[in-house]
Amino acid sequence: MGSNRLEAFSDGVLAIIITIMVLELEVPEGHEWSDLWDATGLGLLTYLLSFVYIGIYWNNHHHLFQICDEVDGGVLWANLLLLFSLSLYPFTTAWMDESELAQVPVVAYGINLLAAGASFYVLEHMMARLPGQRDKLREAFGRTTKEQLSLLLYTLGILLALFTEPWVGLVPYVLVALM
Amino acid sequence: MGSNRLEAFSDGVLAIIITIMVLELEVPEGHEWSDLWDATGLGLLTYLLSFVYIGIYWNNHHHLFQICDEVDGGVLWANLLLLFSLSLYPFTTAWMDESELAQVPVVAYGINLLAAGASFYVLEHMMARLPGQRDKLREAFGRTTKEQLSLLLYTLGILLALFTEPWVGLVPYVLVALM
Amino acid sequence: MGSNRLEAFSDGVLAIIITIMVLELEVPEGHEWSDLWDATGLGLLTYLLSFVYIGIYWNNHHHLFQICDEVDGGVLWANLLLLFSLSLYPFTTAWMDESELAQVPVVAYGINLLAAGASFYVLEHMMARLPGQRDKLREAFGRTTKEQLSLLLYTLGILLALFTEPWVGLVPYVLVALM
Amino acid sequence: MGSNRLEAFSDGVLAIIITIMVLELEVPEGHEWSDLWDATGLGLLTYLLSFVYIGIYWNNHHHLFQICDEVDGGVLWANLLLLFSLSLYPFTTAWMDESELAQVPVVAYGINLLAAGASFYVLEHMMARLPGQRDKLREAFGRTTKEQLSLLLYTLGILLALFTEPWVGLVPYVLVALM
Repeated sequence: MGSNRLEAFSDGVLAIIITIMVLELEVPEGHEWSDLWDATGLGLLTYLLSFVYIGIYWNNHHHLFQICDEVDGGVLWANLLLLFSLSLYPFTTAWMDESELAQVPVVAYGINLLAAGASFYVLEHMMARLPGQRDKLREAFGRTTKEQLSLLLYTLGILLALFTEPWVGLVPYVLVALM
Repeated sequence: MGSNRLEAFSDGVLAIIITIMVLELEVPEGHEWSDLWDATGLGLLTYLLSFVYIGIYWNNHHHLFQICDEVDGGVLWANLLLLFSLSLYPFTTAWMDESELAQVPVVAYGINLLAAGASFYVLEHMMARLPGQRDKLREAFGRTTKEQLSLLLYTLGILLALFTEPWVGLVPYVLVALM
Repeated sequence: MGSNRLEAFSDGVLAIIITIMVLELEVPEGHEWSDLWDATGLGLLTYLLSFVYIGIYWNNHHHLFQICDEVDGGVLWANLLLLFSLSLYPFTTAWMDESELAQVPVVAYGINLLAAGASFYVLEHMMARLPGQRDKLREAFGRTTKEQLSLLLYTLGILLALFTEPWVGLVPYVLVALM
Repeated sequence: MGSNRLEAFSDGVLAIIITIMVLELEVPEGHEWSDLWDATGLGLLTYLLSFVYIGIYWNNHHHLFQICDEVDGGVLWANLLLLFSLSLYPFTTAWMDESELAQVPVVAYGINLLAAGASFYVLEHMMARLPGQRDKLREAFGRTTKEQLSLLLYTLGILLALFTEPWVGLVPYVLVALM
């Protein structure tokens, strides 16, 4: 089975996820800069963060399916798992934002990031099972150190949010987006 | 008439349906795990269920149009009927979730599942009418036992929700998703 | 300039319009069939009507660009005009539904239908200006009687809604969808 | 890396932005023309304005990637920056509309327009870095006077909104849309 329609469908889902997050931004009731900042300042920053993440996933997804154009049932389901994790970003982002960075929502956001990262990992492994694709993947992605580092940083962020101030947990999250 | 643009349009609609369901999830007002569970726990599970269904439909739709690339007016309308049924999933999912699995909403969800399943059936039959496609379809889908079983299980779920506890009706629905 | 990306963009917009209308459906607060009917019964019917219209436009749009694959600036703008008119369907549908078919909203819906019909007409004429396309269009669409009849029926619906009972105006609207 | 999937993804995002703005339109509570005008009159006009802008960006984006089909990481990120700016249009449009053209929201809208214009500029320059593309771009877009004029007019609009009546700032914004 070719990967064209899977790519088109994933692009559609990612395009929607990245765009509907803006619907979660609350329009300020007042008409001053301070109202914008109070009602939406944090929301704009967390939106930017999640936008960058989805952009990175789109980019990596694009890259992955340029190398491999053979897909099977396992790859289809791993891809859906990834899309499901990513589709929760607007929800966890909104919760984290509305709670003004309370501990549990920051941890929940981190778990969501971790789940998406792990799903991407699963997707790669499902693709590497297919004959002839392992070598192409290894060549293109190397030893995937960057990916493992992301998973580590998400975990670190979760732990920091749990055992220090919640906002400290955001530091490793932002680092991943900047990598 | 070729099927390319029909596939692209259907992919677009399915991508939107699968994604906007997350907008129906209510962001919890509190900041604890218990608030997440109370406000959204059931919503996340029903979202997951509907996400899997739409994923399966996308998969089957993809499969169907890989075999047949000839479409006519009847196929176009059967396809729109299917998309209409599926477009109601976010609505019936939200009602079932907000009612905390009350009887009527669970039955309504089952009717929606049944309508989508029947529409897919109609779509296949409209495609099988076109010259030369019946054999290709029969070869690829066999005697479509799995599909008929789904319709049966949806009906069973509706009956169970009507005559026993509503949540029991969900068991056959979940079974279809796992098949 | 080729028409491929214009078609893809239009498909995307139409797919979104046809799908987000479901977000305007109010989830019933009660859990009985009567609650579904009271809160959403009319909404489901008007949603179905608008869904069919958008489906017809997608179909006609598809047909039009299969015949003509040459576009210029005028065609681009006429196409955007059509998409703008169609993008208002979720809004006018919701107003008509929430007003329970009051006179002005039914008329406003009719004006919206008329505006979209007229935009499609403009689009065809912009395409017929391009060298070599007039004949192809005339051959494929004949004397476009059906289209002119739609515009007439929309006008009739508006007049009926204005001078008799509002719901009477819906009769010609529904007739167009069934044609 | 070819530009096909980047174009498809951008088309998806633009199609969603242009369409979801209609979800921000408040459905009037009353059923008279005056209710429509009071609740939504301004909203319809600002929606139209933003719709035209997104239409222009889609058009220019289309044009740009018809000339250049080579992209690299820098182009990808510049493109995401553009999409991020444009994705804020529904938000700033809604704020400007709900404030009934108060000063700060009109300025914020102008800053958003300016940010998108500047991002498009950055995108062009990232594409012009790639070997062999500078000449093609220069030939097709000339000295980009129109683009620089837009940036100037956005700035003028912001200044007028700041130092005269807010609605005066809209005049240069509208001029750009009509250019």
